[in-house]
Amino acid sequence: MNTTPQAEILNIGDELLIGQIVNTNAVWLAQELNKRGVAVQRMTTVGDREMDIVAALTHAMQHQDIIIITGGLGPTKDDLTKDILTRFFNTRLVFHEEVFQLLDSFFKKRGRVLNEANKTQCYVPEACTVLMNYWGTAPGMLFEKEGKIIVSLPGVPLEMKELMNKYIFPLIESRYTLPPLIHRSFLTEGIPESELMTILADWENNLPPSIKLAYLPSAGQVTLRLSTLNTDGKGKELILEQEEKLKAIIGHEIVGYDGETLEQVIQRIFIENKLTLGTAESCTGGYIAHKITSVPGSSAYFMGSVVSYHNRVKQEILQVKNETLQTVGAVSKETVIQMAENARKMLHTDYTIAVSGIAGPDGGTPEKPVGTVWVAWATPQGTLTKKYRFGNDRLTNIHRTYQAALGVLRKLVLNIPVGENFWE
Amino acid sequence: MNTTPQAEILNIGDELLIGQIVNTNAVWLAQELNKRGVAVQRMTTVGDREMDIVAALTHAMQHQDIIIITGGLGPTKDDLTKDILTRFFNTRLVFHEEVFQLLDSFFKKRGRVLNEANKTQCYVPEACTVLMNYWGTAPGMLFEKEGKIIVSLPGVPLEMKELMNKYIFPLIESRYTLPPLIHRSFLTEGIPESELMTILADWENNLPPSIKLAYLPSAGQVTLRLSTLNTDGKGKELILEQEEKLKAIIGHEIVGYDGETLEQVIQRIFIENKLTLGTAESCTGGYIAHKITSVPGSSAYFMGSVVSYHNRVKQEILQVKNETLQTVGAVSKETVIQMAENARKMLHTDYTIAVSGIAGPDGGTPEKPVGTVWVAWATPQGTLTKKYRFGNDRLTNIHRTYQAALGVLRKLVLNIPVGENFWE
Repeated sequence: MNTTPQAEILNIGDELLIGQIVNTNAVWLAQELNKRGVAVQRMTTVGDREMDIVAALTHAMQHQDIIIITGGLGPTKDDLTKDILTRFFNTRLVFHEEVFQLLDSFFKKRGRVLNEANKTQCYVPEACTVLMNYWGTAPGMLFEKEGKIIVSLPGVPLEMKELMNKYIFPLIESRYTLPPLIHRSFLTEGIPESELMTILADWENNLPPSIKLAYLPSAGQVTLRLSTLNTDGKGKELILEQEEKLKAIIGHEIVGYDGETLEQVIQRIFIENKLTLGTAESCTGGYIAHKITSVPGSSAYFMGSVVSYHNRVKQEILQVKNETLQTVGAVSKETVIQMAENARKMLHTDYTIAVSGIAGPDGGTPEKPVGTVWVAWATPQGTLTKKYRFGNDRLTNIHRTYQAALGVLRKLVLNIPVGENFWE
Repeated sequence: MNTTPQAEILNIGDELLIGQIVNTNAVWLAQELNKRGVAVQRMTTVGDREMDIVAALTHAMQHQDIIIITGGLGPTKDDLTKDILTRFFNTRLVFHEEVFQLLDSFFKKRGRVLNEANKTQCYVPEACTVLMNYWGTAPGMLFEKEGKIIVSLPGVPLEMKELMNKYIFPLIESRYTLPPLIHRSFLTEGIPESELMTILADWENNLPPSIKLAYLPSAGQVTLRLSTLNTDGKGKELILEQEEKLKAIIGHEIVGYDGETLEQVIQRIFIENKLTLGTAESCTGGYIAHKITSVPGSSAYFMGSVVSYHNRVKQEILQVKNETLQTVGAVSKETVIQMAENARKMLHTDYTIAVSGIAGPDGGTPEKPVGTVWVAWATPQGTLTKKYRFGNDRLTNIHRTYQAALGVLRKLVLNIPVGENFWE
């Protein structure tokens, strides 16, 4: 493990501390560094204040091998990073002819003239290696001290990425013999995290010490991730071995691999099997159709949807019987069956999902509290239904309904048992 | 300014350090803390390792008044935070009957049984105030030491937000006399940031020095925010004065105030005017209906939608003429007019939006490149159309279509001129 360099991502900018922008730079850097076997130990965000920047930098110098600093390099006066780095590394600012030429041509191309603020960008710390920035105005800076790599880059995502790709990743790769870190992740659907832990306890306790397991839960889904350092070239094999064991335990519940989403998996399965899909949605209001059609290529299998928000639309377009709505109501087994079966005919699909429920926060009754959702799946083999009882939050209920509807749909198409009480 | 409490947001989780998830918790916390006059000094992200968590916590205790810790509280064994906090604050874990009761009823409601992993969640540090979590399984923890507030919350965004709103923001507000920072924000739609800056330059240059203006752009929309410290009780008046001036310049383009979304504004206007709405969607695949129905109470005016993804659905359900589809195609003025007008009749609405376009990445032609979108608005006064040319990114195109469709709809209902070339 000693060969794994440790890194810190240090982001500078008041706009991050007031929540004005999302720190997508840190996410990209973390992904790219990890991919190359660099372990990101810490991410720190501080504002445009010298004391805070110096404190963060001092701490990082004590603990890390690689420090990537982004932000605080523009021409405006609240961008202090360059001056601070100059003092921090006991050096001085010098005029850099090559930077000036590049900047001058950059402005000329755009029909603009260099102003005084821009000219300050041509001064760089004498002790640094200048990283020529062909995508913007502020040059990047590379410092090397005590065997450590310290890089300062502009905060503009495009410029930051280009400079990392052109100068820093090659440098890191030449400097370190990196043991490639291998990941394999498994998306599971419908099993709560705690239950999954119980089911997988034996397997987890018997994992080889070189393999790390992580549970990554998000509303209604848990992703399992196996990681190992591929030190002897056998990492892939090692992970595959555990993947087989995992599949023997919860194979049916593994929906997708390595970041696939539920709707991507559904699309793959439907297209592979030359099947078509449609939805009839009440409480989800088009969300299921939206998730499905957010995937490029979905028009190859998704026909469309009727969003019957008002009962009149359920009756007139989806032909749900007035009697049904009057007696058992819109949130009922009978209604979703009629919605699914009629929509399946109208949309000419192999499978159609119908949902009707009470998303909340209002509209609940003692018999049908907020979070009650009926789902029907009309299939070539007949229609199945299930009643769910989600929680009180509207958007969560909508999201959980989509997950449940597509999760069960996957099993139906793949002939995986869905459990009892589904068939009417 | 000495009364301004300083805060650090400390996020725990290996998944953040490998770039697997975007840290939206930090963004929300930063916004909400700043809104209340708390200055966020630093955001730190560390992994699930005791040494790193303790180091970050120690540093934060030395420098901050308020420390908000998120993540690392689930039932799985890689969630270490609770144990570490117990040691850090020299206390011990004790069984908490109330947490157990809540967890037990949480599970019973869902027809599940508490397992051993969940039972560990009922043990909490003796020295903390337990924050009862009604939205999930892991309780929050509040420590108070040396006059500082240290809070540990689950990383699930919904649970984190509810716990902050219920317990921590009220505590902070009662503990500190915060300098009342007043904000007023204006959502604008359809004017690019650089154009807006030009239009507003004179006004901006004449703002009183005590008022700060921020441009907060997001895809297709720009929010303008005015802020002032209400030190002498005249802040509101001062801002109102500038609001009037702003309205005189771009009044028609101000969609909403103080965080209102486009769909919230549409709902308010439609319900106030006792009007109804429906959509007929092709390339947006239900996204517009979804955004509309994500607002509680939308069933009071939104009737439903026909998502006619496949041309057969356009023909058979929406009665678009076969001839139209054959000659000018699905992405055409004629098609969206028929979609909008027929859907308006079928859904019995006052207004209906229809959209058809090429979301991408595939499906473009030289005449209709990716990003081409036709929108029609069927209104009581007749039907309007407009052709848009967005970019190459699928999800952005879908999002921009929704913004444009609802942005124009607002103007139509409010009798604001929409510009030329809209009426057929």
